Amino acid sequence: MGKFENRTGKIRLGMVGGGSGAFIGGVHRIASRIDDKYELVAGALSSTPEKAAASAQEIGLPADRSYASYVEMAKREARLKDGIEAVSIVTPNHMHFPVAREFLKRGIHVICDKPLTSTLADAKKMAAVVDKSNALFVLTHNYTAYPMMRQARAMVRDGTLGKIRVVQVEYPQDWMTEPADADNKQADWRNDPERSGAGGATGDIGTHAYNLARFVTGLELESLAADLQYFVEGRLTDDNAHVMLRFNGGARGMLWCSQVAPGNENGLRIRVFGEKGGLEWAQENPTNLWFTPNGDHKRLITRNGVGNHGDAMRVSRTPAGHPEGFFEAFATIYSEAARAIIAHRTGDTPPSDVTYPTIHDGVEGMAFIDACVRSSKRNAAWVSIK
Amino acid sequence: MGKFENRTGKIRLGMVGGGSGAFIGGVHRIASRIDDKYELVAGALSSTPEKAAASAQEIGLPADRSYASYVEMAKREARLKDGIEAVSIVTPNHMHFPVAREFLKRGIHVICDKPLTSTLADAKKMAAVVDKSNALFVLTHNYTAYPMMRQARAMVRDGTLGKIRVVQVEYPQDWMTEPADADNKQADWRNDPERSGAGGATGDIGTHAYNLARFVTGLELESLAADLQYFVEGRLTDDNAHVMLRFNGGARGMLWCSQVAPGNENGLRIRVFGEKGGLEWAQENPTNLWFTPNGDHKRLITRNGVGNHGDAMRVSRTPAGHPEGFFEAFATIYSEAARAIIAHRTGDTPPSDVTYPTIHDGVEGMAFIDACVRSSKRNAAWVSIK
Amino acid sequence: MGKFENRTGKIRLGMVGGGSGAFIGGVHRIASRIDDKYELVAGALSSTPEKAAASAQEIGLPADRSYASYVEMAKREARLKDGIEAVSIVTPNHMHFPVAREFLKRGIHVICDKPLTSTLADAKKMAAVVDKSNALFVLTHNYTAYPMMRQARAMVRDGTLGKIRVVQVEYPQDWMTEPADADNKQADWRNDPERSGAGGATGDIGTHAYNLARFVTGLELESLAADLQYFVEGRLTDDNAHVMLRFNGGARGMLWCSQVAPGNENGLRIRVFGEKGGLEWAQENPTNLWFTPNGDHKRLITRNGVGNHGDAMRVSRTPAGHPEGFFEAFATIYSEAARAIIAHRTGDTPPSDVTYPTIHDGVEGMAFIDACVRSSKRNAAWVSIK
Amino acid sequence: MGKFENRTGKIRLGMVGGGSGAFIGGVHRIASRIDDKYELVAGALSSTPEKAAASAQEIGLPADRSYASYVEMAKREARLKDGIEAVSIVTPNHMHFPVAREFLKRGIHVICDKPLTSTLADAKKMAAVVDKSNALFVLTHNYTAYPMMRQARAMVRDGTLGKIRVVQVEYPQDWMTEPADADNKQADWRNDPERSGAGGATGDIGTHAYNLARFVTGLELESLAADLQYFVEGRLTDDNAHVMLRFNGGARGMLWCSQVAPGNENGLRIRVFGEKGGLEWAQENPTNLWFTPNGDHKRLITRNGVGNHGDAMRVSRTPAGHPEGFFEAFATIYSEAARAIIAHRTGDTPPSDVTYPTIHDGVEGMAFIDACVRSSKRNAAWVSIK
Repeated sequence: MGKFENRTGKIRLGMVGGGSGAFIGGVHRIASRIDDKYELVAGALSSTPEKAAASAQEIGLPADRSYASYVEMAKREARLKDGIEAVSIVTPNHMHFPVAREFLKRGIHVICDKPLTSTLADAKKMAAVVDKSNALFVLTHNYTAYPMMRQARAMVRDGTLGKIRVVQVEYPQDWMTEPADADNKQADWRNDPERSGAGGATGDIGTHAYNLARFVTGLELESLAADLQYFVEGRLTDDNAHVMLRFNGGARGMLWCSQVAPGNENGLRIRVFGEKGGLEWAQENPTNLWFTPNGDHKRLITRNGVGNHGDAMRVSRTPAGHPEGFFEAFATIYSEAARAIIAHRTGDTPPSDVTYPTIHDGVEGMAFIDACVRSSKRNAAWVSIK
Repeated sequence: MGKFENRTGKIRLGMVGGGSGAFIGGVHRIASRIDDKYELVAGALSSTPEKAAASAQEIGLPADRSYASYVEMAKREARLKDGIEAVSIVTPNHMHFPVAREFLKRGIHVICDKPLTSTLADAKKMAAVVDKSNALFVLTHNYTAYPMMRQARAMVRDGTLGKIRVVQVEYPQDWMTEPADADNKQADWRNDPERSGAGGATGDIGTHAYNLARFVTGLELESLAADLQYFVEGRLTDDNAHVMLRFNGGARGMLWCSQVAPGNENGLRIRVFGEKGGLEWAQENPTNLWFTPNGDHKRLITRNGVGNHGDAMRVSRTPAGHPEGFFEAFATIYSEAARAIIAHRTGDTPPSDVTYPTIHDGVEGMAFIDACVRSSKRNAAWVSIK
Repeated sequence: MGKFENRTGKIRLGMVGGGSGAFIGGVHRIASRIDDKYELVAGALSSTPEKAAASAQEIGLPADRSYASYVEMAKREARLKDGIEAVSIVTPNHMHFPVAREFLKRGIHVICDKPLTSTLADAKKMAAVVDKSNALFVLTHNYTAYPMMRQARAMVRDGTLGKIRVVQVEYPQDWMTEPADADNKQADWRNDPERSGAGGATGDIGTHAYNLARFVTGLELESLAADLQYFVEGRLTDDNAHVMLRFNGGARGMLWCSQVAPGNENGLRIRVFGEKGGLEWAQENPTNLWFTPNGDHKRLITRNGVGNHGDAMRVSRTPAGHPEGFFEAFATIYSEAARAIIAHRTGDTPPSDVTYPTIHDGVEGMAFIDACVRSSKRNAAWVSIK
Repeated sequence: MGKFENRTGKIRLGMVGGGSGAFIGGVHRIASRIDDKYELVAGALSSTPEKAAASAQEIGLPADRSYASYVEMAKREARLKDGIEAVSIVTPNHMHFPVAREFLKRGIHVICDKPLTSTLADAKKMAAVVDKSNALFVLTHNYTAYPMMRQARAMVRDGTLGKIRVVQVEYPQDWMTEPADADNKQADWRNDPERSGAGGATGDIGTHAYNLARFVTGLELESLAADLQYFVEGRLTDDNAHVMLRFNGGARGMLWCSQVAPGNENGLRIRVFGEKGGLEWAQENPTNLWFTPNGDHKRLITRNGVGNHGDAMRVSRTPAGHPEGFFEAFATIYSEAARAIIAHRTGDTPPSDVTYPTIHDGVEGMAFIDACVRSSKRNAAWVSIK
């Protein structure tokens, strides 16, 4: 107890986007509740005023804290004595930047869904805004918060794998194998480069894969060669991408993301090989991390099981064998952010082990998409990530 | 949205037990929060007053709603205008009955951890109290709430497997392979038959396995033959149990539970075979249900994946491939209870599809433990479950 | 090379049974060829003379070494200067004894399929014949020859698991889920207690499971309680059996065998738990042995991979990762027998590490079937295996 | 019976290479014996005469059929009345061509280990020799002979997957993670481009992966972009390779092969995704082929289990659940070759379903290595496979 509960002084949270029918908004709300560190008190849940109001009522927001516009919300909440301290942004990608700017410039912390923006240019602008702001910026690359990914990162950092040589990361899905139905709103904006960005699968899931590879290995990418394609007629962005990676220090890697791979629901998977050992992990059964010291038996490291690193135990709630999943990892992002926000209240530095994806990770993700698109246009030539 | 969120009129919840250091109390609290249908407002979190107060403060309960005794809590909350509507009982087993009685007789709904009580006699008394009470009684056999267990139950009920012939259920763990440390409080009361009951592994986890077998197959047990043993010196109850099962209608089964099986963290697993097909499921990766129509390919049914029964989809929150785990299943018990409680407010019958373990399941579980102990004392003779 | 090849002085082999259409005869022949230690030179391949001759021609036996009767074969081969040194018996179960007797009494080694006989009485008679004979007797309980089962046995013997507490062994199949077709000869004699024995699934596959449990653990069974049933109308012997086991020294176990469990092709599986660790293995992917030292990570031991015991390496042919399967394990029985036979030629004692199932294992297997049937008739009462 | 046995008129076989200590020679010999269609009667087992003689004696070759030189062997065997009809070539790669030429030009069939040669130029010369020869040429790309790979090929060919879009193939191993020991002969020639060829991992295992991708999909490669590297100092050829693939007709793919990936013993794996479904297979458990029709459940196709295509059943020996492995797949190459050789005896066309890798596959494999090396030298530019 205590580790995950701290109701005294819960953080007052707002939300932009996430009205009825929006999957990711509900995820953020559950994530914010699990460890009891936030109270959702305000929202601009939809760009359609009627829908915003109805959604607010549905989830129990006070009527006077439901806004028809995020600008209005930012302005008023910043003035309220008990106004929100943080806001979750769960809009389509192209709105992340303008929304975040309104809150950041008023000192309200931002917890933003990924990818950061729809263009690299916007990402850089957002980074400038974050730099100037006193408020915190948290990007919900939730997959980095699975305890076994924290374990993997700690093992790489501690040298257990030796110098990293090869990184294999993939993220296949199958839900876009056939053309979208005409009236599926989600598919709609996701296939619109103006709103979603120039990357399709690359932006939607490739960024997760890339971010996870960086998170686990601690390596920075030097250059990539990307072969993007779409297989379904009418699609404007890639639905399958093959990328070769070269990291600083000599490690090499491959990244595959696809939304047209039947038999894959949400198949994010990472494998890392070093001079002294190898690691394997798959998101769909996040409990299990496989570790092979070179020349020894493959062994199973389980969430909160024997031999977990402190970084992994700290973000684990149940004993081994009682599976934690997607929501709990997402909740960890929120709870890590909460630790920083609570420290921020009194001007303290966040605890040194607070770990969440930052604006830097977001810009890196956008640079990755941008590099993939640039490379692919040049017939998969090597391009720098910068 | 909406399916899992209904903050208007959240249910006012109390808790007995669950103070600092108690694992299961924290689980119940997270479970109650996930779908936003409860607000924890009162508690008697420990039988030690100082600890109760400190724990209440730690989790943010108002000081005047923190009680040093559950009797006092029941009395006062029943009188309060905004007193609790429901109470979670997370004490050691032998206290479930006296605590529940105090609340039930005052019309406060009870959500109780399992096993129901420490003796079959108490269980029957509790059933009588529940029968007389206007309040609802919910037992948190959480494993029945995994979506794939709802799926399995629906498939059996719909005849997809044909008449059931064989049920194999097991629940191995390894955490009691060695003698307990002297100062491990949990192990302490669990090894005390007065507080925990006559069954050791049988009561702690065998009841889960037995309950799950009944839940999935819909079969009632006729008789069993149980070979109980403890392998660790000084243990007063079984740490390993082998049970043969005979169900009404001719199906046969085996149940194995163990807490001395190295390599098993929380290995609840069920397999059901009928005239027309077979099912397999393991709790540690609860996403996957394997189904083999006789004479056809084995196939993978995934949570919220293709072909899910409505009963399974209804209790699923994320798209396929985004793992839900232990907390979400537990939350489903709470949220199903909430549906019944909300209907109860206005005197309505709960929706017909509300599904949670009842007092009947609790008595059945205690009868199972009792029968195992009786059979084992008679050299594993067949005994009736009645 | 050399380890598995020794063509000089190949052993002259005969076969009784195994004519066209008989699965197990072909298995024995392939097994005898793999390591190049045998040459099949004679046979009485069918009790129907025409079929015997045709089968002999089909597999290339010299016409003058194809016999219409096993008695004739035994007599003549024993007289020939280059007559067979060993005979493989692959007839229905009830013929194992009369056939073996004819060869054993003439000093011809016998390699016999399992179960040993159709009755315990015959088994004991055969044991007496073996005792009196100078020839060797080998029973093809092939599953004990998988390298990972040799590894498991060595680990138990070496104390790596500590004192054994719990043994879980199972052998589910699904091919008899529905009633047999009228003209399936194999199912025919298998369902005839006169030819197959009193055990159905118990005899056909339960004996394999039981033998493997004994082989791996080195434990002897003290008593068992068996609940046998048949689910398919018209069946004369069990198609599903649940057995509880008590071993000398206090270990307990369960054995399940079934031929009506949809989704199981040939699901032999064993798990052994001791004071210091646990092992798990499944026949369908025989490469992998899972070992968990108590309190440490589960780890994967692979055939010919790192850390293999000499007993396992000795019977492995390919480097790790190049799967050996059913035939190779079967071939190991043949090759181990060959080592003993070759030693026997010169009156030498077989090498001390020669390991194959013996007449003793065969009698034990028949005693197991007999005890299961006896127990089941007494409502699953505990009966001694003796 | 019969399907895999035909001893009458066994094919007289010779072997070049494969003396004591050579792994692959023993594999070929076992493979040739399993289905009883060959008799090994001659050999030039080593380029060192003493070793050749000793090895011949060890495996039981007649002394007068053991040769000190392959040229002498080819000349004499071609003249003998009962000389060999076929020869297995299991030498280092650079000798494949000169050896094969000697036999082919004398009308003796060649069964040759892969890769075809050490250079593309030699490969083309060998193709010319094969074209001119009346004898058959068989390349032992054994992985294509696993029944489930035959099944996969049949499913793609039959349109079950629809048009193929994405091919993911990989072949990681870990045995070269550390520098080779000084006195490991195998590693020695394998690291010598003169003898092994310009490809390291690419040649040794990448060719297997590439061949399997072609075999299963029936697609021809148009171009590739390869990033080859070696991570271990002193290595002269690649120990890790990342390759992007573009096939005729628009399918894209990735190929990864590595010999420095700890935790991978022999991890050949292929995944194929089409418009209508996806397939997954891993060599280390070759029994299982996973098939997902788009929008339906993932299902398990097992060797000789329900729903196997005739092409898969034809090369399967045991019932489902009795694992066949590496040797059996290798034996299938030999047995398929035998069908062609036997037809050739009488001038008949081989049966239309005879399937084995040909000289064309060998040249393709060498072109693949050549293209990988060319691309890598040009910074992973796209190069045509031609």
